[in-house]
Amino acid sequence: MSASVSPLAPKSYPDMPALRGLRMATAAAGIKYKNRTDVLLMVFDKPASVAGVFTRSKCPSAPVDFCRANLPHGAARAVVVNSGNANAFTGVKGKAATALTAKSAAEAVGCDETQVYLASTGVIGEPLDATKFAGVLGDMHGQASGDFWIEAAKAIMTTDTYPKVATRTAEIGGVKVTINGIAKGAGMIAPDMATMLSFVATDADIAAPVLQTLLSAGVGPSFNSVTVDSDTSTSDTLMLFATGAAAEDGQARVESADDVRLEGFRAALNDLLKDLALQVVRDGEGARKMVEITVTGAESDAAAKKIALSIANSPLVKTAIAGEDANWGRIVMAVGKSGEMADRDRLAIWFGDVRVAVDGERDPAYSEAATTAVMKEEDIPVRVDIGLGNGRATVWTCDLTKEYVAINGDYRS
Amino acid sequence: MSASVSPLAPKSYPDMPALRGLRMATAAAGIKYKNRTDVLLMVFDKPASVAGVFTRSKCPSAPVDFCRANLPHGAARAVVVNSGNANAFTGVKGKAATALTAKSAAEAVGCDETQVYLASTGVIGEPLDATKFAGVLGDMHGQASGDFWIEAAKAIMTTDTYPKVATRTAEIGGVKVTINGIAKGAGMIAPDMATMLSFVATDADIAAPVLQTLLSAGVGPSFNSVTVDSDTSTSDTLMLFATGAAAEDGQARVESADDVRLEGFRAALNDLLKDLALQVVRDGEGARKMVEITVTGAESDAAAKKIALSIANSPLVKTAIAGEDANWGRIVMAVGKSGEMADRDRLAIWFGDVRVAVDGERDPAYSEAATTAVMKEEDIPVRVDIGLGNGRATVWTCDLTKEYVAINGDYRS
Repeated sequence: MSASVSPLAPKSYPDMPALRGLRMATAAAGIKYKNRTDVLLMVFDKPASVAGVFTRSKCPSAPVDFCRANLPHGAARAVVVNSGNANAFTGVKGKAATALTAKSAAEAVGCDETQVYLASTGVIGEPLDATKFAGVLGDMHGQASGDFWIEAAKAIMTTDTYPKVATRTAEIGGVKVTINGIAKGAGMIAPDMATMLSFVATDADIAAPVLQTLLSAGVGPSFNSVTVDSDTSTSDTLMLFATGAAAEDGQARVESADDVRLEGFRAALNDLLKDLALQVVRDGEGARKMVEITVTGAESDAAAKKIALSIANSPLVKTAIAGEDANWGRIVMAVGKSGEMADRDRLAIWFGDVRVAVDGERDPAYSEAATTAVMKEEDIPVRVDIGLGNGRATVWTCDLTKEYVAINGDYRS
Repeated sequence: MSASVSPLAPKSYPDMPALRGLRMATAAAGIKYKNRTDVLLMVFDKPASVAGVFTRSKCPSAPVDFCRANLPHGAARAVVVNSGNANAFTGVKGKAATALTAKSAAEAVGCDETQVYLASTGVIGEPLDATKFAGVLGDMHGQASGDFWIEAAKAIMTTDTYPKVATRTAEIGGVKVTINGIAKGAGMIAPDMATMLSFVATDADIAAPVLQTLLSAGVGPSFNSVTVDSDTSTSDTLMLFATGAAAEDGQARVESADDVRLEGFRAALNDLLKDLALQVVRDGEGARKMVEITVTGAESDAAAKKIALSIANSPLVKTAIAGEDANWGRIVMAVGKSGEMADRDRLAIWFGDVRVAVDGERDPAYSEAATTAVMKEEDIPVRVDIGLGNGRATVWTCDLTKEYVAINGDYRS
């Protein structure tokens, strides 16, 4: 963990209300870190509906394999998350570790192993000693409470410099429901799925297939639109749970993703997912600047996103932003290498509200002073108009600093 | 330019013989740099056969457009290269600058403008003042000499810390011929073509279409297999010229790429291209380690190359190597994100001769001490066996250090 908190951290945390039907506890199992919590147990008093999206890595971690296998059962009673060890590329030992953890959790909570979900984050390739869980999960179940979100977010941190939480409310058929979520970053963050660990829960009563539809759609413009370093984790996991406790207030269960009563909930969920995803970027390893890159005028939305990610992942663009240098030539380079259609002589580029390039050359009205003022801000908006069509996309990234190199050149040891 | 020379620089330079039919001169035109040469003129006394491969960027520089247009004419009398300004994304002003430079060069040398080739490297987006060439090219033509290769290589440097030269000899039909080349890097280096500027010339008598076939084939395992930072320049240019002077020694002109007399020449050319490409990587911005990544056992050679480049371009792999950390978990991550088929439980990974992972987990015989010894070397060989097929590829990259960030966070200003 870094000693100092990211300058882009939120100035305050929201009050995180308890969520009916869900209790949590954390513990210090000593998996890797000393003097901090590193295990989170989430307990659903009754089976909760569950949905998940996972890394597209061809080498996923053992917990990702485990969750994927359980997801068709559609119900969750327990979630065990640990930091310090990803249990990835650990072969048969990794499978044994997930099996033992699931057995311990099922015994502690009193449920079936198919109702257990697991996630691990940390070093890849080191065997995970799951016996460390066996001793603590029973106690954790006894201590678990509802008002525990920020502590939960802290327990799953690795190189994160601050815990990431968000909460929203919505109405379904006139009944108020709450959505709470936590997430962790902070490197190995790139699209192709959730790009980190995040757990979101609601007290709404929504069937699992509907949750999955909402989550799969919601991840596109949020977690799948952020990148820190173009590296995709083996462990990326984003899960959404619905305890159904709002049924006590008369909320009729939602059984279809087309249900018109979902309108407000969908908007609130998407807003929460974007909030958490941007918190992850703002805690990107070594980050000093947040960069929002909007591409317009591409041949399609997909082309716009590919161009935007080509810019967002370019080391030369990211180092220029770290140096507060409005080096739009590197933006041109990144557009050019994306592989999508672009015509140099139609490109226009803005930093903030300052148009720096237009029609294939420097803007005649270019002002170095105005541009420099934009670059000195913490939040840098970049817009590129391709001038070919109506495709549009926005992605978020951070700058590439010497601290990123320092953090990652001395992480494992 | 960096103040200190890369620790990976060659310990000595080869003697670069003059090449019959080609003379060169350099000048300090003050395009951007002070107190150094920044223009190179290459003059062919008689029209030389010419071949070229260029950036695949959709936003190529004006000189790249200019060269592509002249290439079908097949003959070169003059080449003008400048450093300090890439003349890229400079719109109509950029075209005017290439036109004026070509006119000046044609007048100085006494040739047609279709026999002129141009290349520029440096900042993107700044208008290039081509009037600075007009005054110097005539004098340069008068001074040009054959024994000038290292000075030529120096004039085209940007952030390079050393000039890059190479020479080879071969026989064609019993007649000895020479191949000389120069190149410059050192950032914005990635495959998808030549990835920098390089000019190679031979006194062999070979027709232009044959040269093009040789060059297009030779670039694959050399310049298209190196990456510094995954960023593709707008200006990448690799050109091959044949003066034909060896005809005076009785070398019969080669008119077909299938000519068996080309065997030795092809091998010598490919060896020279690889030599220059590796020199570019060894001078990667901020580089302290050279990394050779070989992927075997992939589904195809193309799949192996994609996986190898995914590893080579991963910031997390590159920072780990900078930190002398044998973090093979990040290799697994990079294999997993490549999109190519891979089975975690069949992967094996070596650093040098030390196998660190096999069959989906850490090698039982893993020795931290042996691995650490490998990581402390300047040259780090990494091998990954995918265990699925016979596809194979090797690529080269360098580590990612704080110096890369420093160089690129403060380059334009």
